[in-house]
Amino acid sequence: MTRTLTVAGLQLAFSGNRDADIAMTAAAARAAAEGADVVLPPELFEGHYFCRHEDEGLFANALPLDKHPAVAAMREVALETRTYIPCSFFEKDGHHHYNSLAMIDDGGNVMGVYRKSHIPDGPGYEEKFYFRPGNTGFKVWPTPKGVIGVGICWDQWYPETARAMMLMGADVLLYPTAIGTEPHDPDLDTRRLWRRAMVGHAVSNVVPVLACNRIGTEEAGTRHAQTFYGTSFACDQRGDIVHDLDDHTLGVVRASFDLGLAARHRAAFGFFRDRRPDLYGRLAQDI
Amino acid sequence: MTRTLTVAGLQLAFSGNRDADIAMTAAAARAAAEGADVVLPPELFEGHYFCRHEDEGLFANALPLDKHPAVAAMREVALETRTYIPCSFFEKDGHHHYNSLAMIDDGGNVMGVYRKSHIPDGPGYEEKFYFRPGNTGFKVWPTPKGVIGVGICWDQWYPETARAMMLMGADVLLYPTAIGTEPHDPDLDTRRLWRRAMVGHAVSNVVPVLACNRIGTEEAGTRHAQTFYGTSFACDQRGDIVHDLDDHTLGVVRASFDLGLAARHRAAFGFFRDRRPDLYGRLAQDI
Repeated sequence: MTRTLTVAGLQLAFSGNRDADIAMTAAAARAAAEGADVVLPPELFEGHYFCRHEDEGLFANALPLDKHPAVAAMREVALETRTYIPCSFFEKDGHHHYNSLAMIDDGGNVMGVYRKSHIPDGPGYEEKFYFRPGNTGFKVWPTPKGVIGVGICWDQWYPETARAMMLMGADVLLYPTAIGTEPHDPDLDTRRLWRRAMVGHAVSNVVPVLACNRIGTEEAGTRHAQTFYGTSFACDQRGDIVHDLDDHTLGVVRASFDLGLAARHRAAFGFFRDRRPDLYGRLAQDI
Repeated sequence: MTRTLTVAGLQLAFSGNRDADIAMTAAAARAAAEGADVVLPPELFEGHYFCRHEDEGLFANALPLDKHPAVAAMREVALETRTYIPCSFFEKDGHHHYNSLAMIDDGGNVMGVYRKSHIPDGPGYEEKFYFRPGNTGFKVWPTPKGVIGVGICWDQWYPETARAMMLMGADVLLYPTAIGTEPHDPDLDTRRLWRRAMVGHAVSNVVPVLACNRIGTEEAGTRHAQTFYGTSFACDQRGDIVHDLDDHTLGVVRASFDLGLAARHRAAFGFFRDRRPDLYGRLAQDI
């Protein structure tokens, strides 16, 4: 049993037609699966990034885990290709709506659901209108080659997300994403910040990180136009970029992480040895 | 009252003679103080970085706050130049020894002491032999222009340190440092990791950061030779480097941070708004 884990992250553009977008993502996942242990689609690949508007009609697109076509499609792909697929989807659970992720194993089974813990809100990213903050807590997922930690988009900015998953034993951190321009501020380009935050998690936790993001301009030609910047990347446990994509090309960000070497480096650095949980109480208090 | 805070960080090399090194640092601090609100000397500027050896004779160099010549010298400089000086020193308190920092205000008064919370240990950095892990908890320091958070060296790798100081109201994070080569592993150059971790804190907390480090080779020509890599830097609240130094030149890393703009960006990003302390309990538990 090797400790090399290969992850293929999909950088895709979406049409806005749900069935077509799910089918396209499934096809891309199948194509990317060759040689991969994990295939990671971007966040909410069931269509356009709908959160730029607050539209009550869109809640109808949320569906329970066992009825969601995105999850069903990825279960088929996972079984066919014998890969693990963290599958983002818009979840309905009773009267609650979540930005969720079904972790699908290499037999096509749902291992469990993680619900996005940190929900953004601002011009172009009105997620607090749609999503209840997740109530599952952070989760990690055992696989034969290592433990996978997955956060969803906004979670990726939080050192707490990364650290919590590491304390649960994660060997690698993955982040499906939907991020791009800020419609209210054409001068604000967050792409370098986006990468720096996650590279920081890689270094501070001595862990490989992979994030994949969508591309393309949605609602082009309107004042709501939003262009997603891709720049999907993988970095190793020292924060060195091992593969990345540009801001406008469909593709796969692919990396084979040596999890054994990462664990060796992590132990030698001693960051976990020297933590002071007795001094971190403030971080976990609502004050 | 402006919200622009100017910090001058000293990048120095040390002779190993305590009195001479303290006097040299005081002279450098005086020279750097013009136009600065805060002058930051590097960690343990009272001589060579002694922690590369475990030598019981060196405990004799630790002194109480009110008897330590490094603190006395910096109190004089602070009063003369009307600057705040976070002053690193090897502290003795009864039978305890700490890697400490006296915060000195612009009247030359000691506002309080912070004791390094995270203590490293490894070849070339045998700090656990010398220093009891700090028992003060993290601290921040009010000044007329903003609240200053200061961590000491190894603290700088911890997202928890940065976040805790931010939750206490810090407007800027400063890190006096002593870091360089790894005597056991000539191929391990941590300088890019060092910077990435702190740039990550800047982005994740939307806060300016400044770190200063020593330069020079100590114990040159022996098998214990250790070369400190300087590369002191300042970055703004988006992680953009605004000033940095190279790995071999004496100098001052100087930055004027717009704390009002940083606060505006911090509020707009919403990272603090969207935190989930209810999900962070694991971070503060010793399990």
